[in-house]
Amino acid sequence: MNQVIKYINDNKDRYEEELFEFLRFPGISAQPESKQAMEDCAKWLNARFERAGLTSEIMATRGWPAVVAETTPKRADVPTVLVYGHYDVQPVDPLDLWETPPFEPTVRNGCVYARGATDDKGQALTHLLAAEAWLQAVGDLPVNLIMLYEGEEEIGSPNLEEFINDHRDRFQADAALVSDTSQFGPEMPALCYGLRGITYMEFVVTGAREDLHSGMYGGIAPNPANIVATIIGQMKNPDGSVAIPGFYDGVEPPADWELEEYERLPWDYEELAKYLGIPKLVGEESYPVPVRKWCRPTLDVNGLYGGYAGKGAKTVIPSKAGAKVSMRLVPGQDANRIGEIFEEFVRSRVPEGCSCSISSHQNSPATLIPLEDPSMQAGKEAFTKGFGKDPLLTREGASIPIVSFFVDDMKMPTVLLGFGLPDDNLHAPNEKFTLKDFHRGIATSAHFHEAYAKLKS
Amino acid sequence: MNQVIKYINDNKDRYEEELFEFLRFPGISAQPESKQAMEDCAKWLNARFERAGLTSEIMATRGWPAVVAETTPKRADVPTVLVYGHYDVQPVDPLDLWETPPFEPTVRNGCVYARGATDDKGQALTHLLAAEAWLQAVGDLPVNLIMLYEGEEEIGSPNLEEFINDHRDRFQADAALVSDTSQFGPEMPALCYGLRGITYMEFVVTGAREDLHSGMYGGIAPNPANIVATIIGQMKNPDGSVAIPGFYDGVEPPADWELEEYERLPWDYEELAKYLGIPKLVGEESYPVPVRKWCRPTLDVNGLYGGYAGKGAKTVIPSKAGAKVSMRLVPGQDANRIGEIFEEFVRSRVPEGCSCSISSHQNSPATLIPLEDPSMQAGKEAFTKGFGKDPLLTREGASIPIVSFFVDDMKMPTVLLGFGLPDDNLHAPNEKFTLKDFHRGIATSAHFHEAYAKLKS
Repeated sequence: MNQVIKYINDNKDRYEEELFEFLRFPGISAQPESKQAMEDCAKWLNARFERAGLTSEIMATRGWPAVVAETTPKRADVPTVLVYGHYDVQPVDPLDLWETPPFEPTVRNGCVYARGATDDKGQALTHLLAAEAWLQAVGDLPVNLIMLYEGEEEIGSPNLEEFINDHRDRFQADAALVSDTSQFGPEMPALCYGLRGITYMEFVVTGAREDLHSGMYGGIAPNPANIVATIIGQMKNPDGSVAIPGFYDGVEPPADWELEEYERLPWDYEELAKYLGIPKLVGEESYPVPVRKWCRPTLDVNGLYGGYAGKGAKTVIPSKAGAKVSMRLVPGQDANRIGEIFEEFVRSRVPEGCSCSISSHQNSPATLIPLEDPSMQAGKEAFTKGFGKDPLLTREGASIPIVSFFVDDMKMPTVLLGFGLPDDNLHAPNEKFTLKDFHRGIATSAHFHEAYAKLKS
Repeated sequence: MNQVIKYINDNKDRYEEELFEFLRFPGISAQPESKQAMEDCAKWLNARFERAGLTSEIMATRGWPAVVAETTPKRADVPTVLVYGHYDVQPVDPLDLWETPPFEPTVRNGCVYARGATDDKGQALTHLLAAEAWLQAVGDLPVNLIMLYEGEEEIGSPNLEEFINDHRDRFQADAALVSDTSQFGPEMPALCYGLRGITYMEFVVTGAREDLHSGMYGGIAPNPANIVATIIGQMKNPDGSVAIPGFYDGVEPPADWELEEYERLPWDYEELAKYLGIPKLVGEESYPVPVRKWCRPTLDVNGLYGGYAGKGAKTVIPSKAGAKVSMRLVPGQDANRIGEIFEEFVRSRVPEGCSCSISSHQNSPATLIPLEDPSMQAGKEAFTKGFGKDPLLTREGASIPIVSFFVDDMKMPTVLLGFGLPDDNLHAPNEKFTLKDFHRGIATSAHFHEAYAKLKS
């Protein structure tokens, strides 16, 4: 291990140069005109994997290609780890808000600024470099490694599950490793062990066959916009809880140790409210903020539409109105059942004279990754050694569908080693990544493999 | 009078030819490319007024010109009548649904089909031809007549009030006459004596400074879309009545004679529901349908917006959401006060953590034109003689702002002589006007002047 760490420390300058090279490819998966850049970037990554000592190939999917690298030959006596990352990036608009061009990596205050710096090129590269360090310094890794870096994460990974299922044996591992999240704050590495799930529904209420004159028919014709609003208004109680019967069935509250752990986290609620541009954080007041954010299910309208939304006034009774509503789910909730009771709730409130269509956009349960699993223990140890401090134990309020797939479908505990920071400007102008964390990430990844091999054996 | 009616009967063929000429001008006020057609049409109308024996001129406004004609010299011993109409028409899309081209008037089943046939060229022309009949057959009219035909009604008459105010003395009359409405049904002429008013508000709720990720911040950030929906949901009681405190203050219920009159009207609620494409008419069940339609105030959401309304799913907590809400008002309600209590209702329900902006788009009170006024009595008599049957007495659920202006601001009782039919396809493809009603309209207008001169003296 010492040799590995020495190798990592000796190569810092080269690592940074290589990171900048990686960041220069303007491969935006949402934009077809990125074709050349996406292909060039995949080729660069593939060659870089080979140079690191892994066997790598560019594999076609229904969309942008994936780069898949692995240690060969596969050994039967060591556990297998799947590393997932992505080489595509978000669009860069609004361009005029960037202090330096998004595809010209620039170092300021110890950070590299570029699109993809933290999401996810910078973080993905740490695992490649850690594998290289093992292979170059020691000649082998203590685990079998398979690395899957896709090119479609920023467009919702539309082909990833199918791609994995087509090569299921190859990607099946004992644990998965993902670095696409962040620390709790500067110098506060965090091991995230829980994600909320999501049930995302849309309903449309239809009244008359076309928009009606609100003067001629106001008083005798149903108004779908009023109806949609009224139904949504009934979905929540005054205390902020969700009023759909059965919504909280099975909800598992966080354990006492979790509540204690969350209390110890260095939250700054005022600072957070300021960052969001609101006078104070809101929500269910009987629950502490971290519980509202991570452990309580929510119901949020994501979109509302109906009638005339342009400038000025138009006196119509809309023929149709609708809403997109997503519910974040916590452990114990059945994502399908939530969709069903949502639909029952809406349908039973659509008055005579109107019809209603309801559809489901997304449906995945919450994920809790057992902390006692050797992979999670290895994650803790890796952070402690790589960052020089014990990681905080956190959950995340968002959902990462591929992680649900790894955990629920492939039965792979998934270790979320986030090296970024909450203010890294993901998906926004001036995205950055702290170089110190880049280097500590490489070391942490290297430590993970050793710890996992030891704990899993 | 007999000479006037004889003249009208002798000239039917010519009247139809002249109507078709008028209908051939494709003057669509919403379309700047109609400039030539609008100008040609105004010139044609101006010349036609002159030929009828009136003194006419094309007068500039801030928008499309108005054509103003009058009998000269003005006599002190007879009442003055202002006739209002418009020579502009609605756009013709979708063109492919027209059975014959919109600006090639075609007669089928006793109706002329063309854009503007009923709204308003055909109806406006009746008053010109009636005046001509008086002038040609008798040499004079029993009233002073001033006729104001504008070119901007279909774009909301944006310059009309200012134009009238600039020439206030000239347009001030004892009564106004407007033919821009319709009969109750075929062979059922109707004298409309009441219009609802309107207060049209818009409110926008703002939460965080930008759209937020609903996973990361769901549970602690305010959701303006939920809030807007909840506030709207509270605006109505389960029985369909409006829940805003003070909303019904001052509401004058219809008189007993009105309720009896409405009972006698040949309604077909099933047919109306079928026409609207709904299984049945809805609304406040404790009130008869005509009362709901004409005499009860309403609250309708005309537009609802916030967050993501495109295809598929986007997991945002919108930064802003809003609604356009209009309330139809009845006699006794104060349109300004309704705006104030609406605003109070909304503001008091915006939770801490959000801000709200509220604006008013429209504000005009309901209008009841006293049936005992000589002008209304003359309207009744004119229908009885012109159509050979007594008119039904009706109200209208919509608002006609210029009529409010005539009645409230200029203190001119306004007689709404509607010669069209409810299925004349106003603003839609295959607009039509029944030629029999065109001719009866001319006679009715001619009778009006005689009756009014007699009753007013």
